[in-house]
Amino acid sequence: MEAVSGVRAILFDTFGSVVDWRTSLISELSLWGKERGVSADWTGLVDDWREAYAPSLDRVRRGELPWTILDDLHRMSLETLLARYGVLDLSEADKVWINDGWRRLNPWPDAIPGLTRLKQRYIIAPLSNGNFSLLLAMAKAKHIPWDTILGGDLFRHYKPDPETYLGAATLLGFPPDQIMMAASHNYDLRAARSLGFRTAFWPRPTEYGPRQKRDLSPEEPWDVVATDIEDLATQMGC
Amino acid sequence: MEAVSGVRAILFDTFGSVVDWRTSLISELSLWGKERGVSADWTGLVDDWREAYAPSLDRVRRGELPWTILDDLHRMSLETLLARYGVLDLSEADKVWINDGWRRLNPWPDAIPGLTRLKQRYIIAPLSNGNFSLLLAMAKAKHIPWDTILGGDLFRHYKPDPETYLGAATLLGFPPDQIMMAASHNYDLRAARSLGFRTAFWPRPTEYGPRQKRDLSPEEPWDVVATDIEDLATQMGC
Repeated sequence: MEAVSGVRAILFDTFGSVVDWRTSLISELSLWGKERGVSADWTGLVDDWREAYAPSLDRVRRGELPWTILDDLHRMSLETLLARYGVLDLSEADKVWINDGWRRLNPWPDAIPGLTRLKQRYIIAPLSNGNFSLLLAMAKAKHIPWDTILGGDLFRHYKPDPETYLGAATLLGFPPDQIMMAASHNYDLRAARSLGFRTAFWPRPTEYGPRQKRDLSPEEPWDVVATDIEDLATQMGC
Repeated sequence: MEAVSGVRAILFDTFGSVVDWRTSLISELSLWGKERGVSADWTGLVDDWREAYAPSLDRVRRGELPWTILDDLHRMSLETLLARYGVLDLSEADKVWINDGWRRLNPWPDAIPGLTRLKQRYIIAPLSNGNFSLLLAMAKAKHIPWDTILGGDLFRHYKPDPETYLGAATLLGFPPDQIMMAASHNYDLRAARSLGFRTAFWPRPTEYGPRQKRDLSPEEPWDVVATDIEDLATQMGC
């Protein structure tokens, strides 16, 4: 692998790339609704919740909101959506539990086996817009074998702001060309590559549901294009 | 364990508490000197290197030096000591290798078994004055099973500055009384307790060598007093 020789650390986008947020949240909320006798269009609510993600990050990135961790941005969106979907009169404990669903997302089937192999040879960590405590809770709940956690709150910036990628490189003590950004989202890799990082892509064609139109394939010749994280491990010599 | 109910995360002092810096560095340098035909009082050099530690941190803590990571403070001290001990004409690669000895320190025999047990039930992480990349390299080299890394450079402060303990609590998202600071140094626990953290102590009576005088016993009634990290795991219900 000429293209990726010298890589010391692999940083993973997390939501969508490593964990399946959509199926996890829809199934958890549907079950909860059934047990609690609360009916609603949970699929619509979850899709809208994720749709609110980028605009809420952008409000922070543009300075319209002061630094706010993702847990709190999720909670702000959730309040609006519960009202819109007619899910009323929830207790604070219920809302906390629903919001913490982002801490209980299930890894895609290839994620843990692939990461476990990659960990033998590389430093592996999330580089996610999730906050440190969210990512750590998820790792503990789902046994994701990260060597360490890198969340947006370490840098008080959200991807694709360069401060996130470059802040990670500073902490790791490696130049960007010894670090690989690994993701199922082209925009993330584009930002990392522009700063000198190596890149790896695999598609998650159902991340956004059956009618997904974005990120179905690599939009640039990334250093590695894989079918999933197990294939990435194979291609990285693990 | 009434005193420690509700603990979610245990943060470990690392140098001395988890790893045996003195024996590791002396034996590594002695072997290196023998192979390279460089003779010197390696024990004296290592003891002086560690003696330079607190004063160099204090220069940063008092603002006499701008923020400087521990790797670089170690290197500054090393330059002085190599001259004082008559170890001359080393290449840059040699100096980097010697300085990186802090990344290859051996855990005390109870550390990995104890941490592995504690990890089943608690979040475990170093909260060390070592920099992030140093602690991560050590964890990879010695298979220390941290859930994540917390180094001084995340906070740009050194213990016992309150910014380190409180910065860790903010990232973890827990109030201090749900976090235990665990160390073989009373000063560290004193600082943490004053901010509301739980505390655990075990002695390392040979950390500083055969004539050690400090930290031979707990100087306050810490929440847990253990014989080592395996005993800590037992006392914490693991």
